[in-house]
Amino acid sequence: LHDAFVSVHNANVSVRQRGFRFGDGVFETVRVHNGLPYQWDLHVKRLRTSLSAVKIAFDLSGLQDICRQLLLTNTVKQGFLRISISRGEGSRGYLPDIKNGPLLVIETVDATPDITEPVDLYLSSLRKIPNECIPSAAKTMQGLNSTLARMEAAENNCFEALLLSVNGKICEGSSSNIFWVKNKIVYTPDVKSGILCGTMRDAVIRLSPYKIVQDEFDLTDLQTADEVFITNSAWVIVPIKSLKPQGWNWKNFDIAAEIKQLIMEDMNRHAA
Amino acid sequence: LHDAFVSVHNANVSVRQRGFRFGDGVFETVRVHNGLPYQWDLHVKRLRTSLSAVKIAFDLSGLQDICRQLLLTNTVKQGFLRISISRGEGSRGYLPDIKNGPLLVIETVDATPDITEPVDLYLSSLRKIPNECIPSAAKTMQGLNSTLARMEAAENNCFEALLLSVNGKICEGSSSNIFWVKNKIVYTPDVKSGILCGTMRDAVIRLSPYKIVQDEFDLTDLQTADEVFITNSAWVIVPIKSLKPQGWNWKNFDIAAEIKQLIMEDMNRHAA
Repeated sequence: LHDAFVSVHNANVSVRQRGFRFGDGVFETVRVHNGLPYQWDLHVKRLRTSLSAVKIAFDLSGLQDICRQLLLTNTVKQGFLRISISRGEGSRGYLPDIKNGPLLVIETVDATPDITEPVDLYLSSLRKIPNECIPSAAKTMQGLNSTLARMEAAENNCFEALLLSVNGKICEGSSSNIFWVKNKIVYTPDVKSGILCGTMRDAVIRLSPYKIVQDEFDLTDLQTADEVFITNSAWVIVPIKSLKPQGWNWKNFDIAAEIKQLIMEDMNRHAA
Repeated sequence: LHDAFVSVHNANVSVRQRGFRFGDGVFETVRVHNGLPYQWDLHVKRLRTSLSAVKIAFDLSGLQDICRQLLLTNTVKQGFLRISISRGEGSRGYLPDIKNGPLLVIETVDATPDITEPVDLYLSSLRKIPNECIPSAAKTMQGLNSTLARMEAAENNCFEALLLSVNGKICEGSSSNIFWVKNKIVYTPDVKSGILCGTMRDAVIRLSPYKIVQDEFDLTDLQTADEVFITNSAWVIVPIKSLKPQGWNWKNFDIAAEIKQLIMEDMNRHAA
């Protein structure tokens, strides 16, 4: 692992770092609650999956200690750890020819305000990158698909974008997983739909008092849902009030609120 | 435009630069011959297309002057200009919230040795990212698909990877466009196949004395080709001697050599 704690103004990487050249790396955004990373083991497990999927060899054994130190140094109580690993420095072209092995960058980021009101979702004109192009199980630095989808949502006054898979199945948000409820059963796209399994998605599945069904779903399955909500490590759970431009609306937010409460209690327990 | 000429050891970007966070940017690799950029106007045109496709607003009017200055400063006669533009600095998540506007980075890179022998191609297990996920016309920093394909080719002792589109049509190499010849007609995938139109591909089309047919093609169309070759700004033209693991072989390289010669003469004329 690397060896410098620096202020953000001095936290620089070479222009030849492959993360900058090609987005050639992986990352994690870990929620920090009462000074402790939430669901740390899940994040490390996914980081290992990501590294393996993109063939970056990197020993994660010292990671937890460094993150602890950084949280203490920066006195972070509520916020995020952003951990990224770039393949290394060197090579103008795609074939890696690395002089300095993988580069680990860990940042702490301030907490974002809690989103308390239901938001609008925008059906993106872009489709999610399929697993046959970039391994879907890896959380990579290839963020342009999500960026363009989120920008399009914002231009249409929506908080988040919903992306379908190239086969037209419901996939995920630009930065979130999606769930919906029908007759007290909770539905969410499965791995075959091409999703990245978010850690807050895992928390919902682990803590939901309602039955969870994971499968491939058509967009029209949303139309008849009683409620819809999205999840990620920053937003926890955010209820959806409409899908644009479809004009589908939802007015029930109770189950989303109930499961969010269960996750917040879980967070408090683990940070007690 | 930005304002510093720095040695490569001081050429750093913030870890918060979106190019590093998300590969959120575009680039060009321009061949420099006798101190002059080859097909400059084509590169600038494509850079404009790329910027527009990913919604980065950036004025390119001063670019040529800066590149000229840099080539003089670094006394580059043969080599490359690598021009990249990252969306800017700021925002932990996908939605851009930029403090410092787009960042332009221009590097000069040494010439690579001319590839004089025919090479092996490996049919990638990955498919090219389709236009409905990331605009194919944009040369973006999303290089992981190409990187993984090229690594797989290298692991199989092949020089370059060939990627099909998600519909199974011939698309392009990890870093190159592909051509093949049958009865003195030259074939190459068209824009509908999801290719990035390389500038050396343009040179082939402009200078070929043989008829060029651009269309969508099945992989089996390669099997009966008389010759196969690939193009990019660094390699110009490289003849292909086999496709693995198919085990298809080609033994004719004359038309590739003839067109390469025409391109080298064109380069000499323009840099005279």
